[in-house]
Amino acid sequence: MLEVNGRRYAQPRQPTVIVCVDGCEPDYLAQAVAGGHMPWMQRTLARGTALVADCVVPTFTNPNNLSIVTGAPPSVHGICGNYLYDVESGTEVMMNDPKWLRAPTILAALSKAGRRCAVVTAKDKLRLLLGKGMAPGSICFSSEKADTANLAEHGVADVLALVGLPLPDVYSAALSEFVFAAGVALMSRPAATRPEVMYLSTTDYVQHKSAPGMAGANAFYAMMDRHLAALDEIGCVIALTADHGMNAKTWMDGRPDVVYLQDHLDAWLGSGRARTILPITDPYVVHHGALGSYATVYLPAEEVTRTAERLAALRGIERVLTREQAAAAFELPADRIGDLVVVSERSTVIGTAAARHDLGALEVPLRSHGGISEQRVPLIVNRPIAGLETGRRWRNFDAFELALNRAQ
Amino acid sequence: MLEVNGRRYAQPRQPTVIVCVDGCEPDYLAQAVAGGHMPWMQRTLARGTALVADCVVPTFTNPNNLSIVTGAPPSVHGICGNYLYDVESGTEVMMNDPKWLRAPTILAALSKAGRRCAVVTAKDKLRLLLGKGMAPGSICFSSEKADTANLAEHGVADVLALVGLPLPDVYSAALSEFVFAAGVALMSRPAATRPEVMYLSTTDYVQHKSAPGMAGANAFYAMMDRHLAALDEIGCVIALTADHGMNAKTWMDGRPDVVYLQDHLDAWLGSGRARTILPITDPYVVHHGALGSYATVYLPAEEVTRTAERLAALRGIERVLTREQAAAAFELPADRIGDLVVVSERSTVIGTAAARHDLGALEVPLRSHGGISEQRVPLIVNRPIAGLETGRRWRNFDAFELALNRAQ
Repeated sequence: MLEVNGRRYAQPRQPTVIVCVDGCEPDYLAQAVAGGHMPWMQRTLARGTALVADCVVPTFTNPNNLSIVTGAPPSVHGICGNYLYDVESGTEVMMNDPKWLRAPTILAALSKAGRRCAVVTAKDKLRLLLGKGMAPGSICFSSEKADTANLAEHGVADVLALVGLPLPDVYSAALSEFVFAAGVALMSRPAATRPEVMYLSTTDYVQHKSAPGMAGANAFYAMMDRHLAALDEIGCVIALTADHGMNAKTWMDGRPDVVYLQDHLDAWLGSGRARTILPITDPYVVHHGALGSYATVYLPAEEVTRTAERLAALRGIERVLTREQAAAAFELPADRIGDLVVVSERSTVIGTAAARHDLGALEVPLRSHGGISEQRVPLIVNRPIAGLETGRRWRNFDAFELALNRAQ
Repeated sequence: MLEVNGRRYAQPRQPTVIVCVDGCEPDYLAQAVAGGHMPWMQRTLARGTALVADCVVPTFTNPNNLSIVTGAPPSVHGICGNYLYDVESGTEVMMNDPKWLRAPTILAALSKAGRRCAVVTAKDKLRLLLGKGMAPGSICFSSEKADTANLAEHGVADVLALVGLPLPDVYSAALSEFVFAAGVALMSRPAATRPEVMYLSTTDYVQHKSAPGMAGANAFYAMMDRHLAALDEIGCVIALTADHGMNAKTWMDGRPDVVYLQDHLDAWLGSGRARTILPITDPYVVHHGALGSYATVYLPAEEVTRTAERLAALRGIERVLTREQAAAAFELPADRIGDLVVVSERSTVIGTAAARHDLGALEVPLRSHGGISEQRVPLIVNRPIAGLETGRRWRNFDAFELALNRAQ
């Protein structure tokens, strides 16, 4: 057994794949299965283990991917967004650098214990975080930069030839398809060289555009189903979960329903006295315009209580917590969140100042995430697991525990 | 001014139409407008008054239609479901009979004040409740039984000829289309004979089957848009709201995600000691199988506290309230609800005993309502209204106030 972040994991006896399907609201599976687009999933839900789990709030990609691979909440691993206000330097910075990761990953521990590990992620922004600490020779690359993957840096070369697909566009369903196809290609290697543990992480390009049951969504899940069936056929234990759900975030006129927090704060406190941080912010804003249902606010200490009350009274705001309350409620690192944490309702998103968002880039009615309303995600294993604890609050970051300890 | 249930209403100066769109989750409008299917609605949202309001919990058809026409919550009008346990007689009965209605309607008051009033409802089950107390000569009929409407009983005859459509099937989008077409036909009469106040109430056949943005939903809302545009063209003040929202209620395999309450209660307390009532129950079960997100429970007094705790711990249950708590929280008549009120989460419904539900009748993945998750509904007026109170909690049963007092 390996101990990682206070939890113990068995080493794999069968090839094991953990899949994080970005933005996989459970209803995507429901509608795709009902429509006959996921025959493998339908069988697996009936014969394997089917749970709905809570992901981590903020329901964003990076905090949840790191929770899954560390088996721990952000209070332990430190990644609480894509983007943060670095109080030390007084600047707003991306959180992609592995220096922000405070905890070892299960993948690093397994690889250091001699297991062949592989990580394939859709966007390159996650690669360095997910790969941190993995032993030399471990495979870790992104679809986005698959063409430049090499043995020295990524543990694998000639990925396009291996996978048999062209380099996908960063804004495409193909970016995720490449992840699955690469996973199948790696697992199709001879048993002595294929990965023993593999982590696949997709992108939510499709989920930001298509609601459950829409043609675009069903086509995506049909593609996923074929690849999962192939991994199952090879004999893999598969645990599938998601980083977050996804909901429509529109006003009745089809435009985003945005609470522009910085504009309210400037009006109440004076311009620039408070700072709104949107941790969804990343370089890939075309599909969400940096609009999610979670924000943090830095503001003068004497304004915290009154401002929290005023924020909580705004239409569309679900919860306002102080730093300490949020750290406790959502298991967040208190030193990396603002004085207030603000969560909006299911159909509402939070912006900074209206002037700072370009909604013109949105091609379809906004779908996004970040709030408590996107916390429910699938947690599915392709093996039956006996004696599942009733009443346990399952988390997406229990995926490695189920796959390694309970399903082999 | 007329006073009805403690609120004052101005008499109409322009022909006035209140529309209750059954199951109109606001996102139906958003997706249809974004897709270009509702040009009138798009203009109206920009130029008129666009609010999102809270409907009444339980988010069912009858309680909310009666709230809209009385301007009051169920604690005042007494209609808290389609179906209730009549403690006096010890029987479970439908609540369609007007004897259950405890408050006068605004329509009755207006008609008695000499105003020409009309009610057109999709299903006949609502007709007698909505028409209660209306002055002789008032129009009140259903699409479902339009072929038998007559002057003596319904205030209008030859409805099929008037509307120019065949009698629609009770399970169809056409049942609601007939409501709109009848409304336009009535308002197209000469000014001296057309209704001065008209209430139109549709059925949620389409919304139970199609998610927002689906082709079936968009076609329905396009149809509605054409008829609303026609009423607007005639010069009507139009206030549009809904009785409740609508959500997918499925497990990941596409089947209904049901908490079978009676089975739990029988296991905990002994068979038959508690009685689960599903107030969604009505004779038209094909589209929801009597599965909604709200139930009440009658049980021995000594079991209430412990049972409430056990119910609240069940997966998928959002809130469990005692009779007194529920009466206060949801403004319900305490004498017509059970000892406990149970509300399930957005994607979960409540059943009685598994053996008592026939899920085979469901043709598509379940969509239903009843819970707090279906409380948000549109409240739209085709006139700008100045000085709207900020911070006011708008209700669907403010529709008559907005239309009569603020928009003329």
